[in-house]
Amino acid sequence: MHEFELINKYFSKLAKNNKSSLNLNDDVFFDKLKGLVISIDSYVEGIHFFDFKKPELVIKKIIRSSLSDLICKGVNPKYYFISGSGNKLYFNKTNLQKISKSLKQEQKKFNINLSGGDTVVSKKLNFSITSVGFAKKIVLRNNAKINDDIYVTGNLGDSYTGLLILKKKIKVGQNLKKYFTNKYYMPDLNLDLTNVLHTFANTSIDISDGLISDLKKLINKQKLSFRLDLNAIPISNNLRKIIKEKKLKKEDFISQGDDYQILFTANPSKSRIISKTAKSLGLKISKIGKISRNIGKSLFLDEKGEKIALKNNGYYHRF
Amino acid sequence: MHEFELINKYFSKLAKNNKSSLNLNDDVFFDKLKGLVISIDSYVEGIHFFDFKKPELVIKKIIRSSLSDLICKGVNPKYYFISGSGNKLYFNKTNLQKISKSLKQEQKKFNINLSGGDTVVSKKLNFSITSVGFAKKIVLRNNAKINDDIYVTGNLGDSYTGLLILKKKIKVGQNLKKYFTNKYYMPDLNLDLTNVLHTFANTSIDISDGLISDLKKLINKQKLSFRLDLNAIPISNNLRKIIKEKKLKKEDFISQGDDYQILFTANPSKSRIISKTAKSLGLKISKIGKISRNIGKSLFLDEKGEKIALKNNGYYHRF
Repeated sequence: MHEFELINKYFSKLAKNNKSSLNLNDDVFFDKLKGLVISIDSYVEGIHFFDFKKPELVIKKIIRSSLSDLICKGVNPKYYFISGSGNKLYFNKTNLQKISKSLKQEQKKFNINLSGGDTVVSKKLNFSITSVGFAKKIVLRNNAKINDDIYVTGNLGDSYTGLLILKKKIKVGQNLKKYFTNKYYMPDLNLDLTNVLHTFANTSIDISDGLISDLKKLINKQKLSFRLDLNAIPISNNLRKIIKEKKLKKEDFISQGDDYQILFTANPSKSRIISKTAKSLGLKISKIGKISRNIGKSLFLDEKGEKIALKNNGYYHRF
Repeated sequence: MHEFELINKYFSKLAKNNKSSLNLNDDVFFDKLKGLVISIDSYVEGIHFFDFKKPELVIKKIIRSSLSDLICKGVNPKYYFISGSGNKLYFNKTNLQKISKSLKQEQKKFNINLSGGDTVVSKKLNFSITSVGFAKKIVLRNNAKINDDIYVTGNLGDSYTGLLILKKKIKVGQNLKKYFTNKYYMPDLNLDLTNVLHTFANTSIDISDGLISDLKKLINKQKLSFRLDLNAIPISNNLRKIIKEKKLKKEDFISQGDDYQILFTANPSKSRIISKTAKSLGLKISKIGKISRNIGKSLFLDEKGEKIALKNNGYYHRF
């Protein structure tokens, strides 16, 4: 059963009198009156992270993945909670020291504070991270407008390339290996953008499952479609080089997820302020497409303006 | 490694600048300025619940276990989040319907609202429940005073007896089986007491791991000891009957955990108001011992005033 089907069928009705749940339709909870924002996510070895051979990097990846849920809504995270299930093999002294050190670095980088957690014994490794922030307003999902431009921060595909390298499906030199695996483990979060996002974005999401699936989630039940221009989708020079050298296809790299970039839409009148913001923050923000009235289908166009199949890329949680 | 050792060694330093973490020493997080209280707990099959043959009951057990962390601090829970890892065997349609129905009943009973969650695929069944409430002040741990009386709500040992019955280690008739297993799956939470607890309690905890281990946690780093009177520890008539019939020992039943009763201490001058509160709420509150200056050891006295060995009863999470 698809994750959304499960939520809609069995759980949405339990949240229907609770406005703060945002109909269980966003990645965050938002109590407007209290200005409280909470995001909770679980992370399992083999699904959300490759393996636990580098616990210091895995911890950074899952912490950032959690913080990303708040940051993409224009909310500064303040507190985090970490719960771990596992056994001695995972949580030996060396690993615990590495985890503790990594958390310290992330606390400093993102100005967050450890606030609690839980440990249980289990054969399988499993983490749950809760991020908490405070905000008077947040940028919601399901709020795109007809004719909005679609934007994305940073580059897409670097993290996926890092995963392919870790899985030994792509071979590259040591420097490129380091570049891409770092992008996989330590995605850039745009903390600076957070504070101004609500001044131009109508709606936003972070790209965790993949550009296309997250764009679909962003507009979800809205009767809208989108047009994406492959050409405009930003990739790094390093990825461009690999794609060219190995004769790969760009479209196979830009919608695979784990990017943790912010995907948002904005009225075309905001174009200038967005460019200015990008410049002043030293941040790449690319216009990659447009929202349109529902004409029954969304489009993904290649360099020549020809239609590319809209594969159901990206990761869905299924039972 | 012991859970506390792990926290003290690797995680406490990460929370040292964060007052709201309560030094990771309480079961809750409390941001005094925002009046925000959060508790996060993980639940694993075979450790926190017996099996998943009755999902409708397991869900009630884990929800109440989570709410209990707030209620025992004098905080009304308002929101809850539920995350589940498992597979189709656990989360088939029948079970999901049962889970949804149980959650609906608990929402009504405790006036709480589903606010979010997460689902991931995993072989092993694992839940995480987050409870959120708002309060200007809470009853903390580590705040017992010399000469305080020690109190406990309700009865102890019924839940453990229910578990022994489920494990077929004790055989009883159908009515008693129902009584005890219901206590195991659906512990009574004292929502009424919550609102007045801070008017008399100096410090409090809920009994999840067992009377003695939770009492030790309650006074934790304080240089205090306690004296408990076995005779004064409340048990149900049903349990008294079984203990007598089967020639068992009371002391083997009252510190095994899963009671979810509130354990608190109060100045002797509060004795009358506590009795009055108990009467007006129709709630059993028993004085079971005393806090004393650290004389190097705590005491557990039987009916004749003779010392009983203070076994390290109850459950500790270990890696």
